[in-house]
Amino acid sequence: MVSGTAAEPLRVAVAGLGTVGCGVINTLQRLQPRIAERAGRPVVVVAVSARDRGRDRAVDVSRYPWVDDPVGLASRDGVDAVVEAIGGEGDPALAMQRTALAKGRHVVTANKALLAHHGQELAEHAETAGVSLSFEAAVAGGIPVIKGISEGLAANAFTRVGGVLNGTCNFILTEMERTAASYSQVLAEAQHLGYAEADPAADVEGIDAAHKLALLAAIAFGSRVDFGGVSIQGVTHVEAIDIEYARYLGYRVRLLGVARSGENGVEQRVQPCLVPADSAIGRLQGVGNMVVAEGDPVGQVVLQGPGAGAGPTASAIVADLVDIARGIRRPPFGIPASALEELRRQPRESRMAAYYTRLLLRDSPGVLAQVTGALGAAGVSIDRLRQARPDETGARVLIVTHETLRADLDIAVEAIRSLEVCLEQPRIMRIEEI
Amino acid sequence: MVSGTAAEPLRVAVAGLGTVGCGVINTLQRLQPRIAERAGRPVVVVAVSARDRGRDRAVDVSRYPWVDDPVGLASRDGVDAVVEAIGGEGDPALAMQRTALAKGRHVVTANKALLAHHGQELAEHAETAGVSLSFEAAVAGGIPVIKGISEGLAANAFTRVGGVLNGTCNFILTEMERTAASYSQVLAEAQHLGYAEADPAADVEGIDAAHKLALLAAIAFGSRVDFGGVSIQGVTHVEAIDIEYARYLGYRVRLLGVARSGENGVEQRVQPCLVPADSAIGRLQGVGNMVVAEGDPVGQVVLQGPGAGAGPTASAIVADLVDIARGIRRPPFGIPASALEELRRQPRESRMAAYYTRLLLRDSPGVLAQVTGALGAAGVSIDRLRQARPDETGARVLIVTHETLRADLDIAVEAIRSLEVCLEQPRIMRIEEI
Repeated sequence: MVSGTAAEPLRVAVAGLGTVGCGVINTLQRLQPRIAERAGRPVVVVAVSARDRGRDRAVDVSRYPWVDDPVGLASRDGVDAVVEAIGGEGDPALAMQRTALAKGRHVVTANKALLAHHGQELAEHAETAGVSLSFEAAVAGGIPVIKGISEGLAANAFTRVGGVLNGTCNFILTEMERTAASYSQVLAEAQHLGYAEADPAADVEGIDAAHKLALLAAIAFGSRVDFGGVSIQGVTHVEAIDIEYARYLGYRVRLLGVARSGENGVEQRVQPCLVPADSAIGRLQGVGNMVVAEGDPVGQVVLQGPGAGAGPTASAIVADLVDIARGIRRPPFGIPASALEELRRQPRESRMAAYYTRLLLRDSPGVLAQVTGALGAAGVSIDRLRQARPDETGARVLIVTHETLRADLDIAVEAIRSLEVCLEQPRIMRIEEI
Repeated sequence: MVSGTAAEPLRVAVAGLGTVGCGVINTLQRLQPRIAERAGRPVVVVAVSARDRGRDRAVDVSRYPWVDDPVGLASRDGVDAVVEAIGGEGDPALAMQRTALAKGRHVVTANKALLAHHGQELAEHAETAGVSLSFEAAVAGGIPVIKGISEGLAANAFTRVGGVLNGTCNFILTEMERTAASYSQVLAEAQHLGYAEADPAADVEGIDAAHKLALLAAIAFGSRVDFGGVSIQGVTHVEAIDIEYARYLGYRVRLLGVARSGENGVEQRVQPCLVPADSAIGRLQGVGNMVVAEGDPVGQVVLQGPGAGAGPTASAIVADLVDIARGIRRPPFGIPASALEELRRQPRESRMAAYYTRLLLRDSPGVLAQVTGALGAAGVSIDRLRQARPDETGARVLIVTHETLRADLDIAVEAIRSLEVCLEQPRIMRIEEI
């Protein structure tokens, strides 16, 4: 019998002692025997680093050697792997990862922002050094989506990956739906509950979801991370009335990050979409995350779970450490970094989708004929049209289109907007059948 | 750059050319370049075996050397890995796997029955030979649950794993719910649609789900496969009226396979349960599978997808082959076979759960007092009691209990059954909050 625990331990240095770093240390402390059994050898913390040594923390770190400078931590002797839990898309996280990889240390991180911007460079460093760069925790928290897509579904030619990648936005949208409150009211509530940061911009503007989507797309489609190619729209302009109308039409509004592969390339987008109310994503409430992967030959697989928090993030980071301890090596993006191709971006105009359109029209005879005429002239066909009872502001008209070219929709909307009877900028949201 | 495709191919022999075997060959043929890229080298079929050489098949196998005897295939020169797609819990599948492992060939299989009975022996053979025994396809088809639980969630101390593990039974139950038809009517429909076998026993009696559950439990709890320790009840006795009453009480009826760890050991059971109507499993319709894993520190993760069929099964088998080609080795059950402990079975009497109870009582004064008295005397407390309007047969009473010891419930039910006012055997189903 080969006894795992008799083997040399994997020596881990942890940089950043906030929620993530402390969660990892807590898990390694509490579940040590189980982790050693799974890893074939102990996984032990040998040094830590953070900005403020004196701060109160959820775990006792006094037993570990302290290094002020994370870059110094990465190059310290007697370290096999570093956990970068500093965050941020630049230094010191970037310098720390570069140093660790150059010194031949494995890197495990939850830092989606850094990888979305520097993933290619860091993956190349890791492969040159023959070490792992692992980031299961960077996408969808505790849900093993990176492993699921790059290994568990490795046989598949993917057509679409994505889903609900930001729990803050999903909380805001589902709470707006539940309470009919406005975006700003619900944001304040989310901040009060700790589901949104004091500065919520990265979440609510869709940046965080876009970072994650860019990583998912690279893995699914075998392409270089192309964060710059993601169209990004957050939840800040979602209105309660559209959530209500969507519901009336059998949909829910969700902030989706979706990458879809077609003849004209891959489209990557983060935007509020209408999804069928009875779909898995339509039913997802609160801060959970959900990732859908569609490929040949598997069909559709849906992974759901906690997308953030100390426990889920630690689960993902420690799983990466267990793989490293076991000697499992995989290129960071599934295939060698040198083989990753530039992502072929699908032009916006050539994208096909159905759309929800909300119009405010003058309440007078013949207006519907003008609107449907504009749609028809642009080649956009109508699936459903609903007219709300006119009030003093005018007549509300909701239109669900059939699948249409975005270029044609743009022409139709521009034509409608310029109609004398059109009283406000038409409101448009994409419908995602997912 | 290390070019994957320049490396030596992984040479695969496929035994069994039904849906599964042909699906694997089809996928390896169609998606060859992608699979080679992910695997770091080509994965090629070098020989095949099946009972009937002349049969029409979904793929052309004439290009591959044919071996009549699967055991001969397993020991053939020039084979690195065998795919056992023969099925069945004994020979020739067993002899074939034993031979392949003894000759140092990796084994990949979807054969849950064989592993549920011989998993320990085969895992020991694989580890002695230093090769892989992989069975992602054996549980939940195309959903990467084995990898998800043993690797992606490796850091976790699990408390519960399981879910809907048999698509045939889920189709039958959800169709009974949708149409209010009887079990036998819906079974005939399922057979007509190809969702149930001509001999459906292994599915509808819960054996197939129990095989899968025993494998999941072994991986989650680090124990030897204990198929004999699974309490098994299928869907054959589920009545349309209980599905209707369950719905009325806010539940759905699902055939669950659940393994739960507690102070008194691990309970493993396959049985029709009531689940909350608005839970992920309560919403799962049709032939899909869904696996829930709950652990510390991750919380709850839910994996959903196709549980059977040529494509999903091929996805899982080829993913295992890709891991093997990459050189990834993991003990078949997550930790070395020699370290797997006997599963400590939780005695049935000590299990805690809430229950649904349906009674038919004589419609006379004081009967409810007798029933509630019997429950109270046994220490079973009532969460809800509903009385349907009496008809000529008697008064229908539905009781939902609070969490209770199974031993106490058994005493209460026996006492109720022996009441002179009790007109038929009480009907009991477990409620699983999942």
